[in-house]
Amino acid sequence: MKELKDICYIPVKFSEIDSMQRVWHGTYITYFEDGRESFGRHYPGISYADMQQSGIYAPIYGLQARYYAPLAMNDTAIIHTSYIYKPGARLDYTYKIYRESDNTLCAEGSTTQLFIDTQGELMTDKPGYYQQWQDKYQITNLKNKPNE
Amino acid sequence: MKELKDICYIPVKFSEIDSMQRVWHGTYITYFEDGRESFGRHYPGISYADMQQSGIYAPIYGLQARYYAPLAMNDTAIIHTSYIYKPGARLDYTYKIYRESDNTLCAEGSTTQLFIDTQGELMTDKPGYYQQWQDKYQITNLKNKPNE
Amino acid sequence: MKELKDICYIPVKFSEIDSMQRVWHGTYITYFEDGRESFGRHYPGISYADMQQSGIYAPIYGLQARYYAPLAMNDTAIIHTSYIYKPGARLDYTYKIYRESDNTLCAEGSTTQLFIDTQGELMTDKPGYYQQWQDKYQITNLKNKPNE
Amino acid sequence: MKELKDICYIPVKFSEIDSMQRVWHGTYITYFEDGRESFGRHYPGISYADMQQSGIYAPIYGLQARYYAPLAMNDTAIIHTSYIYKPGARLDYTYKIYRESDNTLCAEGSTTQLFIDTQGELMTDKPGYYQQWQDKYQITNLKNKPNE
Repeated sequence: MKELKDICYIPVKFSEIDSMQRVWHGTYITYFEDGRESFGRHYPGISYADMQQSGIYAPIYGLQARYYAPLAMNDTAIIHTSYIYKPGARLDYTYKIYRESDNTLCAEGSTTQLFIDTQGELMTDKPGYYQQWQDKYQITNLKNKPNE
Repeated sequence: MKELKDICYIPVKFSEIDSMQRVWHGTYITYFEDGRESFGRHYPGISYADMQQSGIYAPIYGLQARYYAPLAMNDTAIIHTSYIYKPGARLDYTYKIYRESDNTLCAEGSTTQLFIDTQGELMTDKPGYYQQWQDKYQITNLKNKPNE
Repeated sequence: MKELKDICYIPVKFSEIDSMQRVWHGTYITYFEDGRESFGRHYPGISYADMQQSGIYAPIYGLQARYYAPLAMNDTAIIHTSYIYKPGARLDYTYKIYRESDNTLCAEGSTTQLFIDTQGELMTDKPGYYQQWQDKYQITNLKNKPNE
Repeated sequence: MKELKDICYIPVKFSEIDSMQRVWHGTYITYFEDGRESFGRHYPGISYADMQQSGIYAPIYGLQARYYAPLAMNDTAIIHTSYIYKPGARLDYTYKIYRESDNTLCAEGSTTQLFIDTQGELMTDKPGYYQQWQDKYQITNLKNKPNE
């Protein structure tokens, strides 16, 4: 399986700077989401629009972040978003956020999304659009690696 | 017509503080909305839930704000929200935001909302729930004052 | 005086979409700020960094916005930011926000900033960096037009 | 050691609702911070104000969240914030967020903060205010439990 990865550039906004003169840590959750949206444009089929059309959404179930170095005013964040295959009805990404000016790794993180059907119930099987997306990118015929 | 007015208290959040060590000016738009929501609980019938039930929403059309003094960390904002009657299919409020610790007037503002029907079209007549709300609070049988 | 104007492109973020499926109205205040920051990069000398260096900040004093048409998921906002000359120690901009896909004017607005010295006092004279910036762009030797 | 725990109530804001009609997942990071601030008022000595006075800040290093059930418009979040003792120059909290109306556990999470000195360097020893705070609440004379 080739790695499915997207890179996007997000300039820091003034409103994202906190009283310690750095990007507020909660803002990185927005950056992760910006990364997912950019990923979805890059590998079409699992974007928010696809979810909306089917009525099956994928809310965040789990979220992790680590912060190594600050982003500040006038910085641009480079967001690397990678799809991580895990078996079952779940959607996993990892993120690395770099400061553009000196390529410092500022933060990394991961998210897990689960699927909710039109009645709001948790789905134990993959929704059609996700299975089709995995087929298109030849993801599901891979063996699950032992450490996953 | 008695004045329809609500007062609510909103503590400043750390994430609302900007790099100048004061509440970021855009946050006051959230405070105005907090004021409207509190007003809607005080004078039921035109809350977001009422709009959602009827499918007729009232998005913001116009917005004004003036800033006189800063709010900072550990401050609490006191939000005074007043309904302003204007004839026609529109919903107007004014806001005054005070710093609780010393009662300083920090900001004031106003908003105008118009009504959008279920097809997304601008309504030129008041929706039923708004007319009923005005009737309940004896608003519409008032003469419009000259300076409005 | 030639018009000082900047145009920048800001993609809508998922986190900016409200429960009416459109960009939340308060988010446009962030777009105005994005416009000012982009303007500041275009016409250097009055950016936030310049203010920070001198210790003289220019907080928002007045703010106005009008909303004509919604921005939604996957839209890109085109922000036109124009400097508006007004005599005295104040900094004024107007904004027009267009939807990129069909060039619809979605919103317009204006802001007024005043200057606060290092003691936090309102300044009645222009700070040096602002006067120099006006000189560089040949702004201050203009007569103030009657309608200003 | 008695458990150091704070409970606070945060009403959901309209601006926090996303296009899936629920509180946007990134907003919970704000709720965690609201919880920390409330905890700091409850057990004084490690609030943001204390940090600001000493010049030694405690930015977030690690962050985890799990989402079990949504919060929606008109809900109030009950935030349980607990201090978790871990040896060394670090500050750890866990959070549980309940929906007030039916006491459903909506989310839980944890954060780790590290200390940064006035030169911006990571501190390997506890800052004075943190040691004093731990002494006041009789935390540091406890044996570290095996599973920590």
